[in-house]
Amino acid sequence: MTSCGGLLLALCLAALTGTTAVAAAYERTERNCSASPPYLPSTAVNTTLRLQELRVQMLLQNISAYIIPGTDSHLSEYIAPRDARMAFMTGFTGSAGTAVVTQTKATLWTDSRYWVQAERQMDCNWDLEIDVSVRSVAEWLISEVPPGGYIGFDPFLFSLKTQGDYSVFLESTNRSLMSVPVNLVDQVWTDRPPIPPGNLTRLPDRVINRSWEMKVEHIRNQIRENPYEPTALLLSALDETAWLFNLRGNDIPYNPFFYSYTLLTMDEIWLFLHTERVTEELKVYLNAASCSGPLCVQLKSYDSVREHLQTYVDQPGVKVWIGTEYTNYALYEIITPEEKLMTSTYSPVLTTKAVKDETEQRILRDAHVRDAVAVVQLLMWLEKAVPEGKETELTAAAYVNKCRSKQKDSRGPSFETISASGPNAALAHYSPSEETSRRLTVDEMYLVDSGGQYLDGTTDITRTVHWGTPTAMQKEAFTRVLMGNIEISRTIFPSGTRGVNMEMLGRRALWEVGLNYGHGTGHGVGNFFGVHEWPVGFQSNNIPFRIGMFTSIEPGYYKENDFGIRIEDVVVIKPAKTKYGHNYLTFETVSLVPYDRKLIDTSLLSSEQLQWLNNYYETIRKLLGAELDNQGLHEEKKWMLKHTEAFMKSGSSESVCSSSLTLIALAVTLLHNII
Amino acid sequence: MTSCGGLLLALCLAALTGTTAVAAAYERTERNCSASPPYLPSTAVNTTLRLQELRVQMLLQNISAYIIPGTDSHLSEYIAPRDARMAFMTGFTGSAGTAVVTQTKATLWTDSRYWVQAERQMDCNWDLEIDVSVRSVAEWLISEVPPGGYIGFDPFLFSLKTQGDYSVFLESTNRSLMSVPVNLVDQVWTDRPPIPPGNLTRLPDRVINRSWEMKVEHIRNQIRENPYEPTALLLSALDETAWLFNLRGNDIPYNPFFYSYTLLTMDEIWLFLHTERVTEELKVYLNAASCSGPLCVQLKSYDSVREHLQTYVDQPGVKVWIGTEYTNYALYEIITPEEKLMTSTYSPVLTTKAVKDETEQRILRDAHVRDAVAVVQLLMWLEKAVPEGKETELTAAAYVNKCRSKQKDSRGPSFETISASGPNAALAHYSPSEETSRRLTVDEMYLVDSGGQYLDGTTDITRTVHWGTPTAMQKEAFTRVLMGNIEISRTIFPSGTRGVNMEMLGRRALWEVGLNYGHGTGHGVGNFFGVHEWPVGFQSNNIPFRIGMFTSIEPGYYKENDFGIRIEDVVVIKPAKTKYGHNYLTFETVSLVPYDRKLIDTSLLSSEQLQWLNNYYETIRKLLGAELDNQGLHEEKKWMLKHTEAFMKSGSSESVCSSSLTLIALAVTLLHNII
Repeated sequence: MTSCGGLLLALCLAALTGTTAVAAAYERTERNCSASPPYLPSTAVNTTLRLQELRVQMLLQNISAYIIPGTDSHLSEYIAPRDARMAFMTGFTGSAGTAVVTQTKATLWTDSRYWVQAERQMDCNWDLEIDVSVRSVAEWLISEVPPGGYIGFDPFLFSLKTQGDYSVFLESTNRSLMSVPVNLVDQVWTDRPPIPPGNLTRLPDRVINRSWEMKVEHIRNQIRENPYEPTALLLSALDETAWLFNLRGNDIPYNPFFYSYTLLTMDEIWLFLHTERVTEELKVYLNAASCSGPLCVQLKSYDSVREHLQTYVDQPGVKVWIGTEYTNYALYEIITPEEKLMTSTYSPVLTTKAVKDETEQRILRDAHVRDAVAVVQLLMWLEKAVPEGKETELTAAAYVNKCRSKQKDSRGPSFETISASGPNAALAHYSPSEETSRRLTVDEMYLVDSGGQYLDGTTDITRTVHWGTPTAMQKEAFTRVLMGNIEISRTIFPSGTRGVNMEMLGRRALWEVGLNYGHGTGHGVGNFFGVHEWPVGFQSNNIPFRIGMFTSIEPGYYKENDFGIRIEDVVVIKPAKTKYGHNYLTFETVSLVPYDRKLIDTSLLSSEQLQWLNNYYETIRKLLGAELDNQGLHEEKKWMLKHTEAFMKSGSSESVCSSSLTLIALAVTLLHNII
Repeated sequence: MTSCGGLLLALCLAALTGTTAVAAAYERTERNCSASPPYLPSTAVNTTLRLQELRVQMLLQNISAYIIPGTDSHLSEYIAPRDARMAFMTGFTGSAGTAVVTQTKATLWTDSRYWVQAERQMDCNWDLEIDVSVRSVAEWLISEVPPGGYIGFDPFLFSLKTQGDYSVFLESTNRSLMSVPVNLVDQVWTDRPPIPPGNLTRLPDRVINRSWEMKVEHIRNQIRENPYEPTALLLSALDETAWLFNLRGNDIPYNPFFYSYTLLTMDEIWLFLHTERVTEELKVYLNAASCSGPLCVQLKSYDSVREHLQTYVDQPGVKVWIGTEYTNYALYEIITPEEKLMTSTYSPVLTTKAVKDETEQRILRDAHVRDAVAVVQLLMWLEKAVPEGKETELTAAAYVNKCRSKQKDSRGPSFETISASGPNAALAHYSPSEETSRRLTVDEMYLVDSGGQYLDGTTDITRTVHWGTPTAMQKEAFTRVLMGNIEISRTIFPSGTRGVNMEMLGRRALWEVGLNYGHGTGHGVGNFFGVHEWPVGFQSNNIPFRIGMFTSIEPGYYKENDFGIRIEDVVVIKPAKTKYGHNYLTFETVSLVPYDRKLIDTSLLSSEQLQWLNNYYETIRKLLGAELDNQGLHEEKKWMLKHTEAFMKSGSSESVCSSSLTLIALAVTLLHNII
């Protein structure tokens, strides 16, 4: 799945500028606020009352404006319904945006993907702004808030960077940001969804190599060895705590996380969570029952994290280590004075988690074998069903979700399936709805980007197919996207090379003919974690590649109002043998689904690319073949074998040569016969 | 020339770690301070007295330690003798280092290139530290300076970043940095060299498209249009002022610069320089005689810049724009409060200068044609002279310098010629001296990296040759370095792509067999400016490529104690035609000297690479051929033609094919004859 959510949104949107289409597939039932009376579609939400109530709260706090971001306290990529404050206030349910309310105005910023949706969901209390940069919001604030005025924000919903960016723009103009630790939207949101009732679960031993006690010791060693001499580590991202304790939950859609923070010192472990959800069995597992010694977990109430952190910071001689990318401003701001704070971009948990141990590598590969079965089942079924004319983007998405659910250890999809036909596939981050779902036909290309959560791993794969006759341009574009995927996959590089320094290999074959794509080229994936597992990947803020990391590789090409192509595989970083050097690495693809042969123009491929492709298909035959046998899926096996036959280079010098040699043989035979 | 000097030193050194060799070519005449009495070679400098005097100055300022960097007030890559304060204090004359003095200790930090040299030049007053990071210096300071102590520095010699880095490390431990605007070394340096006497010169009209008045208006427009509403621009880098006024000087070795700052407002121009060096003619040129209106230049004394800047800043409503990369801390620190400061990484002069106008492009290409004549003369002469056994690295360097000096508009070398044979070529930034110069033989590879200053342009080119029989490994390494050069040169990319995102193309063929190099891949060059003209190039802090920029491309490979290879060309960025897209760019090579054919294994080259090479040789034949004709250099022309013959792919399928086709023809002929 392409990565344009969460923290990287601004970066990603910049890259998309000019290439993303407006969501033209929506029916035109947008609001018209300049009509008299204003026209509001049935999908618009009446926000008059809630805005009135919020403005009363703002007066009580003495703030002139209030900023409402679309994230949660852990700066998560997906948020739970109870954290959808921006959606509650505005009516707009898109996954990216910022809302700002003053006593007289209410404005939403969102990007081009969502403009039509916003016009359908918002009432006329709200204005829509289309430049989503912090600068744009800040300039609006400067024009609306008088000098000396205060602009309030919930510090739990701001990253350090967001706070810093606003601050840079606002402070020099004599408007002040004011941290308001009680969320004002929550004060007026009377039917806010509760915390999900589900208990936390621990991972079974078969998917674990390192116990939580081992992980705690490992992280403590990193704290101990740090030259800045921190005394504690604060974990804020939900996957950090989940990883450390080998626990999972169900609070966030698609991500098996639970609301939590951890404060880890050399002799204490404080786990902040909704303690009522911890079973007796788990308390035993965490040595939480009668806690004494450095390897027992003290359970604290989730809402007490600021208070407890304050108590810790107030002690003399302490220094708290935080990763700046995922810590919210509410916790950061109480770590004062400066010498009690130590920062790195990512916490040592995130950088440690990025490198999978041998067990994690093995089971993550295994999950991809089973996942390939589900995708092959989808593709095989579509090949037969589409010509009959009854299938749609939605039925295809449902089918692949069902296939995955039948695989061992399945825990549902890892994100909302992108099932997109024809022009819909040219829209970034499109997922079908009843309104937009197209019927699948042999005349359009089809893109399916989907993934599963399994107890042993998270998967993410994209295939693009055509069931009829592709145009020359479609074939060329597909082949060049594939060349990009192969060029990255087969490259050999020194350990420690950054993804951002090689991602142009994914674009180069496209650039050659003036094509490109407007999203990132790949992101880390985890073991039953988020489908975008930063900081691994090809973005500029990702960490260097090391053996045992997993990342997606996903170049694409999108022709507005026509078609979209993306080819995405997950790969593992492994050692490469070289003639002269040591410590070189390469990728091995662990996704195991063949590409649409019909769309590959082998005459464009170099002999190295062709050889890579044939080797990859050999691997699919071996690994997926065995799994299909195990599952008794004979028809699927046959389909897979047919689609993984070795390619011969067409129209190449080799074939010219071999025909020349045939001619020679013929000539010699003739000679022989004659003489 | 590879770029490891100046501001990028820290970055570059990090890249070199592990690959740079100690300068083993020096004879072992290092000091031995643990002997009794200590042994000091004749090359060591007695620093006892000057240290005593400096320590008195430090006591007067109440500082516990004093930091002495190796740069000048303009953070220049090359410094004038009068700015060699670190060398004066330590005895060590290497181009990179930092010295720190306390009342009891004196320590130098320099990198591995210079360790032996430092041990030869320093007396036993000085310790040598080998970790050159700011952190290392800071940790030493923390161990030597008591809490509450002050650490002095000359703010003119610190960049904002250097000051910030020290500050981060020191402030949290209760040691304070203290800006001491009068340089303490200068107080004890009684025979400090004076300002060079030469006058400034203006560029002739034939090498100029934009008058200084046009440039001033252009930059003022950028100030006017900046949304942060600056009222003035402060220029600190020497090439900024030189560019703005189309002036040149002779204060800095190899760089035609003069000591200067500029403060440009909407209606005034203040030029800070040694006013006595401005001739009457130049005063007229600058409208400086009776200055009134926005397009006359007010000449101010160089040493009054802080004072005048203070006066300007004290006015209400002003805001000064600075580029943070080249402004020293002494000027930065007086632009207070914060709302009077506006920063960008580079000043608009540097980013404007990076894109050459049509005249600049034309004359810079022209300079490269004449420069190629000199390099061809060197290579041709060496081919004959080396087997006779009398030539050395030094005589070769002298020869190419002499050849360049005979070319039209020559203004000397653009840096110290790197003329390196055998193992010397494996040393980063080696230049020959009487002690180290090797005799050139047919048994060793030879690398020559040299460039010229011409009134119309600055050049920089590296060729590596072998006059005997190269080993298979040398040939493979050379070919792979060449493949890197070609792969970057021929790539097509969208306008605005950054060099850092494609520089791996220069390494990829090497990586494939486990080889690499430890320096950057290229840097901008200018029109009669510095040979490293940032911010253009392939480093991570370089700006995106645009049409009209010039950069070097210079991959290499270095085998310690054995040989070194580098192939460097200067290229211009120009539009590329593509099948589907617009606004795509590519490179065109403007250096025009053939590569050593003997070292190219064409069987490793792809057909695209071979075609690029043959096209390039066609260009050399056309452009250089005409110039050689013009200059009546017939022997050189013959030599050039011989070395630019088209390559045929050896051992490739094409040649197999063509021989098969010959066989077929033969067979058919035979058949024809028989039948």
